[in-house]
Amino acid sequence: MTSPMFEKIALVGIGLIGSSLARVIRREGLARHVAIATRSPTTLARAKELGLGESYNTDAKEAVRDADLIIVSVPVGSSGEVAQEIAPALKKGAILTDVGSTKASVIAQMQPYVPDGVHFIPGHPLAGTEKSGPDAGFAELFENRWCIFTPLPDTDPAALEKLSEFWRRCGSNIDTMDPQHHDMTLAIVSHLPHIIAYNIVGTADDLQSVTKSEVIKYSASGFRDFTRLAASDPTMWRDVCLHNKDAILEMLARFSEDLASLQRAIRWGDGEKLFDLFTRTRAVRRSIIEAGQDIDVPDFGRQAVEHPKGS
Amino acid sequence: MTSPMFEKIALVGIGLIGSSLARVIRREGLARHVAIATRSPTTLARAKELGLGESYNTDAKEAVRDADLIIVSVPVGSSGEVAQEIAPALKKGAILTDVGSTKASVIAQMQPYVPDGVHFIPGHPLAGTEKSGPDAGFAELFENRWCIFTPLPDTDPAALEKLSEFWRRCGSNIDTMDPQHHDMTLAIVSHLPHIIAYNIVGTADDLQSVTKSEVIKYSASGFRDFTRLAASDPTMWRDVCLHNKDAILEMLARFSEDLASLQRAIRWGDGEKLFDLFTRTRAVRRSIIEAGQDIDVPDFGRQAVEHPKGS
Ligand SMILES: NC(=O)c1ccc[n+]([C@@H]2O[C@H](COP(=O)([O-])OP(=O)(O)OC[C@H]3O[C@@H](n4cnc5c(N)ncnc54)[C@H](OP(=O)(O)O)[C@@H]3O)[C@@H](O)[C@H]2O)c1
Ligand SMILES: NC(=O)c1ccc[n+]([C@@H]2O[C@H](COP(=O)([O-])OP(=O)(O)OC[C@H]3O[C@@H](n4cnc5c(N)ncnc54)[C@H](OP(=O)(O)O)[C@@H]3O)[C@@H](O)[C@H]2O)c1
Repeated sequence: MTSPMFEKIALVGIGLIGSSLARVIRREGLARHVAIATRSPTTLARAKELGLGESYNTDAKEAVRDADLIIVSVPVGSSGEVAQEIAPALKKGAILTDVGSTKASVIAQMQPYVPDGVHFIPGHPLAGTEKSGPDAGFAELFENRWCIFTPLPDTDPAALEKLSEFWRRCGSNIDTMDPQHHDMTLAIVSHLPHIIAYNIVGTADDLQSVTKSEVIKYSASGFRDFTRLAASDPTMWRDVCLHNKDAILEMLARFSEDLASLQRAIRWGDGEKLFDLFTRTRAVRRSIIEAGQDIDVPDFGRQAVEHPKGS
Repeated sequence: MTSPMFEKIALVGIGLIGSSLARVIRREGLARHVAIATRSPTTLARAKELGLGESYNTDAKEAVRDADLIIVSVPVGSSGEVAQEIAPALKKGAILTDVGSTKASVIAQMQPYVPDGVHFIPGHPLAGTEKSGPDAGFAELFENRWCIFTPLPDTDPAALEKLSEFWRRCGSNIDTMDPQHHDMTLAIVSHLPHIIAYNIVGTADDLQSVTKSEVIKYSASGFRDFTRLAASDPTMWRDVCLHNKDAILEMLARFSEDLASLQRAIRWGDGEKLFDLFTRTRAVRRSIIEAGQDIDVPDFGRQAVEHPKGS
């Protein structure tokens, strides 16, 4: 075995993202020692049962001691608290990174606590599922997905390159951008879709003219697609909404404007306008498939899972 | 072989739905003769190449002659035209049905042309994918899905039972309801989701602050889920919007009201309200999975398709 990239990696937070990291670090031999920290004894015990690391702590300070790489994978609203807690135990020369879905807010929360000589490099792997907790993770999660860094003006290029290499070994492609652009981009590609999905599922759940059981029963005709995003972790998504407010509100405003115009087209029976929009959006999916960011199988491949032999 | 349910079935329209019917009729041996009709010579030639039936016609009148069951599978806006065309050739005692996604409008369009002695039973199989045309169909499409009938007051119970048995043999479960309730129900479980998906994809496509290529590149973080519905056939969906206007506008109004309230919660940082909604919607997905209307695999099983062995 070639020597691992890092002697010791500390994973603070061991949910979907943290535990997927633990699994891919093991598979790729990226660290000699993986130290796992999580807040609750229950989650910690589960991580231990799953054999995700070499040492286990509810005290994050203990886990990060002597670590060369520390990855914080907790809801974005807890980033500041965690940074404050671990700061005194961070080793000089260590790389500290996170995986939070918003970046400007995470930087504002964590940076004040980062000691001199520690390389703080904010990051965000664009990979996930609707599941959470240590059982939900899997080593392939990051494969062929993007990991975005939003380096600070004084980020050490060597540290950034080392962290990039780590994520490449996890299967990801690397991009860098400034935190504001990250937050605006994610507001449209991730935050707005989740909020809209939560909203439509809420609307359907509240109706009186159509019962809940009818909504469930007939959901395969379209509705079920939205329920996946709307089943994502409530704490994570509450925090995203609270910590990327401005960009999200801007995207919501544009969405609502467009919806009002589409509503008018329906009201006035403007078939041409409807046809034009419905044609234009088709091209977007084709591009996503060509870019390798979704599979080219009808119905997301559900049929392939349900009827493995096909017809 | 037991004798088939029908001597001759005519399929008028041979796209996703029509060609899936052709395939399951063949697999289950439900007819001795399947006559296929479609408007364009190109689609007809393709159906022939695929060997979907026993006879092929661009003239629907020829196809329906002597047929015991006629299934019209064309965009809902063309239902009236097709009914008018085939009416003179329909056999006494034949069952005439359709698969259109809206029902009150289809009934209003078709019923005036139905000759005495022909059993007209409007229907709608709640099964589909985002693909269209004769190549997109497959025999398993209707399996474990619902087929809704909206019988007319004078529908013959024996004819209804025979048609129900046909759909059960195609793999479906049967429900009946009145056309207005069908249209209201479908407006929430199918039409609103498609319209919202088209709208959000349109919004993303129009942005200037985030480029199209960024939207594509980073789409796996949520956005891509909406692009599937938004890649559905433009003609079909234009027709649905034009022919179920009132119910769709009502659902859009409720959706927008709820969205305005969610927007306020984000603006004012009302974390509790966000958390409550995001928790409530989770339960809906669980119910859908329990009802067998979606698969219990993260990410709709895309990972299972991409990484067949899992982790
Ligand atoms: N899920 C996705 O699709 C996705 C994708 C990309 C990035 N992210 C980001 O990744 C981060 C983690 O998400 P995840 O999906 O892995 O979440 P998760 O599965 O819910 O796991 C969350 C982890 O954070 C810990 N935690 C929760 N609240 C905490 C608090 N107040 N203080 C300290 N630790 C706390 C949990 O500990 P206990 O269980 O011990 O309480 C658990 O170890 C979030 O910032 C999220 O924005 C998520
Ligand atoms: N797709 C779904 O998910 C789904 C689900 C349930 C119900 N439905 C309903 O099923 C029906 C058919 O949908 P589909 O998905 O099978 O569509 P499709 O794959 O696009 O096929 C449409 C068929 O209708 C024919 N057609 C189109 N315009 C016509 C016109 N003006 N006059 C006569 N024939 C015409 C086409 O003929 P040519 O190709 O020869 O022009 C083709 O044979 C629609 O009413 C739809 O609402 C669809």
